[in-house]
Amino acid sequence: MKLVSSTKASTRQALIEGGVTLMREHGYSNTGIVEVLNHVGVPKGSFYHHFESKEQFGCEIISYFEKQNLDKMSTLLQSKQGNALTRLHDFFIQSKDDFIAADYRSGCLIGNLGQEMADHSEILRAALAGVMANWKELLAECISEAQENGLISASRPSKKIAELLLLGWEGALLSAKLTKTSEPLDTFIEAMFQIVLV
Amino acid sequence: MKLVSSTKASTRQALIEGGVTLMREHGYSNTGIVEVLNHVGVPKGSFYHHFESKEQFGCEIISYFEKQNLDKMSTLLQSKQGNALTRLHDFFIQSKDDFIAADYRSGCLIGNLGQEMADHSEILRAALAGVMANWKELLAECISEAQENGLISASRPSKKIAELLLLGWEGALLSAKLTKTSEPLDTFIEAMFQIVLV
Repeated sequence: MKLVSSTKASTRQALIEGGVTLMREHGYSNTGIVEVLNHVGVPKGSFYHHFESKEQFGCEIISYFEKQNLDKMSTLLQSKQGNALTRLHDFFIQSKDDFIAADYRSGCLIGNLGQEMADHSEILRAALAGVMANWKELLAECISEAQENGLISASRPSKKIAELLLLGWEGALLSAKLTKTSEPLDTFIEAMFQIVLV
Repeated sequence: MKLVSSTKASTRQALIEGGVTLMREHGYSNTGIVEVLNHVGVPKGSFYHHFESKEQFGCEIISYFEKQNLDKMSTLLQSKQGNALTRLHDFFIQSKDDFIAADYRSGCLIGNLGQEMADHSEILRAALAGVMANWKELLAECISEAQENGLISASRPSKKIAELLLLGWEGALLSAKLTKTSEPLDTFIEAMFQIVLV
């Protein structure tokens, strides 16, 4: 790792944050490098001082978004307040409220880029699948804790339940984005906590 | 409705079919009209003889894909062979096998376009949401039949279960596309038929 000046590091960071905003809204292919530079107010031509390629930039954006969300997930799921099942429920309610507050726009950057890029870039696909695996792991830890404490049945592996929660949530977000209503999110949360997590 | 010559009608149909293929692979924004014309082998400039706009072309593509899938779904779900629960299960197994045979590529055109376009075109969003509603209706009919025949509990509204199946399936397809494995599809089908549809 080489030392970088704080200006260079902050420009790099600003480009990544701008990239997250634009790619969430427009996707990967429809976010041009020039648009990101304009959005951030950085001179054209400076992009390749910071990133080797658009694909590497995409990976940095995915990493950044993952870190932001892992922090948020950890805060809720690994909190000392409430039991594991309550924390899991609170996490989905919080995520639902965030999506409603965002007017059902954009949705999950990882799901969106996965849908768009999984068949077109092996590097991005692997990075996105890695994020999903880490999120699944965090959900599985909380489910295991609920099982160990006898809050829910331990008859199903926590990782299987975590996979179901994650894939269902991605589908519920897509469906809510399409219908512009919270109904799919409510249907999903209700079914999971009334039928599966019992 | 005006009369069209068979050549004009068949060119129009070829453009729609070409559009389905290209948009499934590349999405809406990344499928240029010129590419569709080249793909089909139709002279440039003739697009607007057949469609008012790219958005109207998109709607025709969505309609065509819906019809194709509704036919396939009806054949499986409304067949006279097997009971309603078996037919429902067969439908998901068949859909899983189709996606494996396609090397986990593309996925559901409706889900993909929904993810990409729901925030950018109200016309496309409404058309895509309409397709999902029709698919949900067909699933709900089969679930109602299974409930009426005492194959599964009637304690939950069939439309709620259908919504859960549809959103979960869209999420499972996305997850399988991302991991390039059938595991998410298996996890989803297993959970639905062992825990929900009982």
